[in-house]
Amino acid sequence: MNNDGMLVVLSGPSGSGKDTVLSEVYKTSDDLVQSISMTTRSPRDGEVDGVDYYFVSEEYFLNAIDDGRMLEYAKYGTNYYGTPKEPVDNWLRSGKTVILKIEVQGAENIKKLYSDCVSIFITPPSLSVLEKRLRLRGTEQEEDIVRRLNTACDELQKIKYYDYVVINDALVNAVEEVKSIILAEKLKVSRRKNIISEVTKNV
Amino acid sequence: MNNDGMLVVLSGPSGSGKDTVLSEVYKTSDDLVQSISMTTRSPRDGEVDGVDYYFVSEEYFLNAIDDGRMLEYAKYGTNYYGTPKEPVDNWLRSGKTVILKIEVQGAENIKKLYSDCVSIFITPPSLSVLEKRLRLRGTEQEEDIVRRLNTACDELQKIKYYDYVVINDALVNAVEEVKSIILAEKLKVSRRKNIISEVTKNV
Repeated sequence: MNNDGMLVVLSGPSGSGKDTVLSEVYKTSDDLVQSISMTTRSPRDGEVDGVDYYFVSEEYFLNAIDDGRMLEYAKYGTNYYGTPKEPVDNWLRSGKTVILKIEVQGAENIKKLYSDCVSIFITPPSLSVLEKRLRLRGTEQEEDIVRRLNTACDELQKIKYYDYVVINDALVNAVEEVKSIILAEKLKVSRRKNIISEVTKNV
Repeated sequence: MNNDGMLVVLSGPSGSGKDTVLSEVYKTSDDLVQSISMTTRSPRDGEVDGVDYYFVSEEYFLNAIDDGRMLEYAKYGTNYYGTPKEPVDNWLRSGKTVILKIEVQGAENIKKLYSDCVSIFITPPSLSVLEKRLRLRGTEQEEDIVRRLNTACDELQKIKYYDYVVINDALVNAVEEVKSIILAEKLKVSRRKNIISEVTKNV
């Protein structure tokens, strides 16, 4: 078997439901590793440090950038988000499928570094659905909602740089679609360098 | 929505179980159209004309080639196998997903004609498993079995020209894998030209 891991980049606007989709995908697949992002923003209610994100100070984050320990990072609004590099490289070397949930800005950098990564964009069915979701969340000020919608509109233009797009209308379908993409990518001949010798070896 | 259909080319050595896999895939998906091949070989027990193949005479087959009515054809052993072109093009125009089950020789021609087709190679786990399956089938003479194994060994070298490879060890897994490949391919951004205007239209 090809022992190389696979890197999956997953992005989507705030309110696209990418966290919910991902947590369902993890429940049904033992083989996946979730990379945990680091951020300088404050935790929302219920978010746990080291599970949802590593919540750090801006000073800590900027030092990690200077030391070359970040795979990618982006400033989004007034906060930094990014991915520590070392654990990702270790998982890939051990053959794991690593999912990076990252902001749209950061995804472009990853594709430059890992040319065979798989990128998935999760989108709400429309901007008006997104607006409803953000209001229902009830944690955002009006000006934050307007800012997030504007940002989402910009981000949706970047779909064209991704390999796959999943419309998160019904959760169960979106979960199945993400799982199918990951499974299909593992079956690509280009990822299975030794497949011919595998199936012809027992002559 | 993008109204273009998708062409799926599926090949595999005789005894790889591709027919069984395909019939299971069709059971669970309403959206698929199976292209029926034409052949000059005799029907096996239980095979039905117009369902499994169009069984025709060599004269009829050669005329269809001369008239340009064949999408692809190949001589395999002493028999011709091929795909009539017109129904495939009609289905693709109407947005269907069309599956072509064709011989390895023929698959190369299809890829030249339909550059965005998806190609899947179904393989037994090993040549020794294939040999067992051919003997269990009980319909083949010893010399036919030897010839089929030699052909299979040649065909397996062609895996590298396909997009995906599915190892048919456990049927239920092989079916799930083929279904995932088809679903994932439909989610490719490159196949969804209007996706950005779709999700941003309701501002």
